[in-house]
Amino acid sequence: MSANVAANNEAFSTWTSAMQSRIETVLDQHMPTDKIIPAHLHAAMRYATLDGGKRVRALLTYAAASFCNADSNKADAAAAAVELIHAFSLVHDDMPCMDDDDLRRGKPSTHKQYGDATALLVGDALQSLAFQLVAQDNHIQDAQKINMLHLLAVATGSRGMAGGQAIDLESTNVSLSQADLEVMHLHKTGALIHAATLLGAYSADDVSDKKIKAIDRFSKAIGLAFQVIDDVLDAESDTQTLGKTAGKDADANKSTYVTILGLNKAKALAHEFHQTAIKALSPFEQEAELLRQLANFIMRRSF
Amino acid sequence: MSANVAANNEAFSTWTSAMQSRIETVLDQHMPTDKIIPAHLHAAMRYATLDGGKRVRALLTYAAASFCNADSNKADAAAAAVELIHAFSLVHDDMPCMDDDDLRRGKPSTHKQYGDATALLVGDALQSLAFQLVAQDNHIQDAQKINMLHLLAVATGSRGMAGGQAIDLESTNVSLSQADLEVMHLHKTGALIHAATLLGAYSADDVSDKKIKAIDRFSKAIGLAFQVIDDVLDAESDTQTLGKTAGKDADANKSTYVTILGLNKAKALAHEFHQTAIKALSPFEQEAELLRQLANFIMRRSF
Repeated sequence: MSANVAANNEAFSTWTSAMQSRIETVLDQHMPTDKIIPAHLHAAMRYATLDGGKRVRALLTYAAASFCNADSNKADAAAAAVELIHAFSLVHDDMPCMDDDDLRRGKPSTHKQYGDATALLVGDALQSLAFQLVAQDNHIQDAQKINMLHLLAVATGSRGMAGGQAIDLESTNVSLSQADLEVMHLHKTGALIHAATLLGAYSADDVSDKKIKAIDRFSKAIGLAFQVIDDVLDAESDTQTLGKTAGKDADANKSTYVTILGLNKAKALAHEFHQTAIKALSPFEQEAELLRQLANFIMRRSF
Repeated sequence: MSANVAANNEAFSTWTSAMQSRIETVLDQHMPTDKIIPAHLHAAMRYATLDGGKRVRALLTYAAASFCNADSNKADAAAAAVELIHAFSLVHDDMPCMDDDDLRRGKPSTHKQYGDATALLVGDALQSLAFQLVAQDNHIQDAQKINMLHLLAVATGSRGMAGGQAIDLESTNVSLSQADLEVMHLHKTGALIHAATLLGAYSADDVSDKKIKAIDRFSKAIGLAFQVIDDVLDAESDTQTLGKTAGKDADANKSTYVTILGLNKAKALAHEFHQTAIKALSPFEQEAELLRQLANFIMRRSF
């Protein structure tokens, strides 16, 4: 490892910790405490959102903001919003009528802890809160907020994340082609990862088309890499390591990159998507280093 | 009935039909058709939203817009958004883990028709679509959109509608005071009725504080009147007339205005709230006539 690479790695590690801590503070500050009525709902919203996960989506927002020369405080609302949308999707996804999963981030999932009815409302209220935080932010202009809110709404709805989940529902016990699987994941996880990254760019006062195009390509490829790795992890890991129930997709008779391609080809495909993401950043030098490192970080989740 | 009153009534009736037809067209145009993937989800979203109800919330938006001299086309996105939020709340409310109601607007409720998992996603996607429609509207300025989106998000979330539903959940088998019941309903139904009306005012380019204050008072009072009447209807009507299951609240051992006050006092209270609403409009003449008539229309739902 060259001195330069080591320095970049160390800087990335420091930056990641700082941003993970930062998003935790932003979320904590903007979520009603459990002293505020309805206390039970607010406690459950905090349980579902705080102290959770690697915050990959918020990291993408902050890294893209940095790439576009925007201060982190301009990206705080967008970063919080994507984490709230992600948290809401996990709460609803885990419910008995969906994936029926009892475990999330190593803890009982929200409906196990607070009951199904409260979990339903937690998801609903987290979604509204995401839009509220962007709308009320003081660091960005109205035109930026509108672009952000529109992108976030489309990425969340029937042409984005919710649509991907609907395609997933229809695909149980159906043998999908690799192309079908890609369409599903471009919606289900890809739309929010794409939006998270683009929102970082939108937080800049001014950004070149060249950078927007690079972010667009980068985030689509890294979203797919992320999903392939998720399938590999689901097949390879145990429940304790994952912090959620392992082997679920195979048990539910769902097509995954592993069931379609086998483990080795799935890993190779993840590397291919990763290379596409890195290549999208090739016109840029040090200013794209956080995004590059983040792509590597996403790959390191597994192998 | 004086000639003037008769003319006003006829004008209101014509206006109501026109606006009900208008909102149906706006919703239809802005909802993805069932030819667009995921087809099943889009069909279910349309089933849950179109051809439904009296559109009281959209009527409040349009009437408030007219009161503030805003063209209806400036209020279309807001009117559609409140109807989408309302439709989403009904879909989630009817689910087995909430009120478990099989009937809505005289048809099988969405989860009965499309399954629980799809109903969950329908509600989630309708909420996003509400924010999307306001964000992408071409008739209003960015600053107006931001005010609208913020109000809508707060009214939908844990300090508004979702919060009211959470309070409602906690109140089953608990004997509430009239004051507690009012707090619950100010959230559960009141927040969206208040927002619907205020959004109409926000669609005007310029509006006086005097009018905003009048709308604020009017909409809070009419929201409470609306809920008291809902309780009266639930106690007095049969399922066929209501188009949803009658007598549910009493069966679920929930406190209502009727269980707390009895039928006659509940009716008197509805009239009292109605009078408060009308009084809030007293500084205004013909320009407030639609709002006045709409308050009467809401009262006429029952007795």
